[in-house]
Amino acid sequence: MSGEEHDALLGALGPQLTEPCLLAVSGGPDSTALMHAAAAARGPAALHVATVDHGLRPEAREEAGAVARQAEALGIPHAILTWDPDGSHPGTGIQAAARAARYRLLAAHAAEIGAKRLLTAHTRDDQAETVLMRLCAGSGPAGLAGMRVERNLGGGLTLARPFLALSKAALVAWCDARGIAYLRDPSNSDGRFARARLRRVLPLLAEEGLTAERLARLADRAARDDAALGQAAEDALDRLASPGEGAWSLDGRALAALPEAVALRVLDRALERAGAPAGRLERLERLGATLLPALQQGRALRRTFRGFLIAADPQGTIRLTPAPPRAAIRGDDLLGNG
Amino acid sequence: MSGEEHDALLGALGPQLTEPCLLAVSGGPDSTALMHAAAAARGPAALHVATVDHGLRPEAREEAGAVARQAEALGIPHAILTWDPDGSHPGTGIQAAARAARYRLLAAHAAEIGAKRLLTAHTRDDQAETVLMRLCAGSGPAGLAGMRVERNLGGGLTLARPFLALSKAALVAWCDARGIAYLRDPSNSDGRFARARLRRVLPLLAEEGLTAERLARLADRAARDDAALGQAAEDALDRLASPGEGAWSLDGRALAALPEAVALRVLDRALERAGAPAGRLERLERLGATLLPALQQGRALRRTFRGFLIAADPQGTIRLTPAPPRAAIRGDDLLGNG
Repeated sequence: MSGEEHDALLGALGPQLTEPCLLAVSGGPDSTALMHAAAAARGPAALHVATVDHGLRPEAREEAGAVARQAEALGIPHAILTWDPDGSHPGTGIQAAARAARYRLLAAHAAEIGAKRLLTAHTRDDQAETVLMRLCAGSGPAGLAGMRVERNLGGGLTLARPFLALSKAALVAWCDARGIAYLRDPSNSDGRFARARLRRVLPLLAEEGLTAERLARLADRAARDDAALGQAAEDALDRLASPGEGAWSLDGRALAALPEAVALRVLDRALERAGAPAGRLERLERLGATLLPALQQGRALRRTFRGFLIAADPQGTIRLTPAPPRAAIRGDDLLGNG
Repeated sequence: MSGEEHDALLGALGPQLTEPCLLAVSGGPDSTALMHAAAAARGPAALHVATVDHGLRPEAREEAGAVARQAEALGIPHAILTWDPDGSHPGTGIQAAARAARYRLLAAHAAEIGAKRLLTAHTRDDQAETVLMRLCAGSGPAGLAGMRVERNLGGGLTLARPFLALSKAALVAWCDARGIAYLRDPSNSDGRFARARLRRVLPLLAEEGLTAERLARLADRAARDDAALGQAAEDALDRLASPGEGAWSLDGRALAALPEAVALRVLDRALERAGAPAGRLERLERLGATLLPALQQGRALRRTFRGFLIAADPQGTIRLTPAPPRAAIRGDDLLGNG
């Protein structure tokens, strides 16, 4: 930067490269910019590149080879990680499966090579598409927070998206200005089939003012609100919950006195701490709509949810216990009104 | 309901009619349904109808007359309230001005006749349009809460929107099933000019899953989150603020330790309590981005905002005082870094 024009890519990337990093590079302009910028900004910490071959398109292997040659020229070790979609056919479902498989493969490779950070080249435009997809899927504000800049993947690995505040156009221009070649349509773009239709809606919304920048800013604000509500829920949970042997109990009266947005998040976290699988916050609304009034009115209530039995007694104590197998199979069904 | 089919309109309206009500009726299907349903569900409390003539279209007077005749047939007193747009020309600005004038006229008339509730016929579709307009205007989650079911207009008057959870189609069908006549395009639809273009985008979004119902549900969830964050801010403000003579002081260290979403709302409410005009929460972000780090680092800082001087000292105390006139004119400008 001294004397030079500020390079937004190097600026965003620099702080990431102090730990061993694995870069996910498909060969498109975004991830090619990530690879070249990381090569330019690298320090003493190890740097690796991986390309996932989903086996969904015949040219994928050749594309991965093109990335491998660029990585070799930059002096960065490169690996091709292969996913076997097991005979599934491309479609909406396959894209979600491919994405999940991709993160699994990348995390496993990161563990193998000792990387602490997995870097992807997601941009503000990817964030805007994610927010619009979530809007269309009926997400509430928590879902509109979209992709986070950093996410803990477990096992000491952090997923980081250093370019999430930059536009795709800026990454393309960065490559073009340096004569760096990239692929136009690499095979492992996230959810490419599902997103294609939304990409036709985005320009219309931009005409009405809803630009990618605004959608991304909405994500930032939604994340900020969700963090505050999440912290309020954690604080309340510590006050209201008592873990017991094979069961959790909660002060239901105090729960029902909380603002609903906090009360639902307390229930969500109590279930997770008790061992229930994570689920969408929105699915708790139906449970909350019967449970919270029952607690306020001192009525007993029993429900199953996420494989747990939630039993409120007339004194306002809630007990969370693993539901019996049959009830667990029935999922969120009504067990009975005590 | 006994034996009869449940009437969603009468069900939504019933609880409103226990107090003297003024109905805002333009003569379109929504507000015509409101008037007829109120006539059917009325109790002993007084019922009045008013139509605002914005003077923006020559046929408006005639349309108001049609509403007056229906009201007379239903035995409900009717008034035509006239707004003089003062030679302004129709356009986007005129619509906002017309809406503000309409609420002023209706509130004044409500006070005159002793109404405690002002009822409008806004539907789920109006809510969806409002949410989409706010999205396009770059609103954060708080703005996406859209119109509230009830709002305190001051002077003992509550604005209520009993049909906000119902679809426009349900109101049209309700009128049609009863042979009730309504106008197709009354002159005082809210922001009709600005909304017309968005109405072309709505069907495209609905095709992608973002229906009016989902936009309205997003508003409900955003309102729920905003209420919880607002309450957290009120609680924190009571702990952190000390009103003084012509100045408010705040414990800035404690403010900076709050989640950012709560801290910004505390500042917003502190300014309002100190006498500053209300403003959009989003405008506080720029102030928060410099003020909160300064407080955390024990740096002094002075800013003007909404006509107030906000001064943080290195000990972490914030003082809010009315800004000197010159600074007030300069608005949000930087005064200096102490």
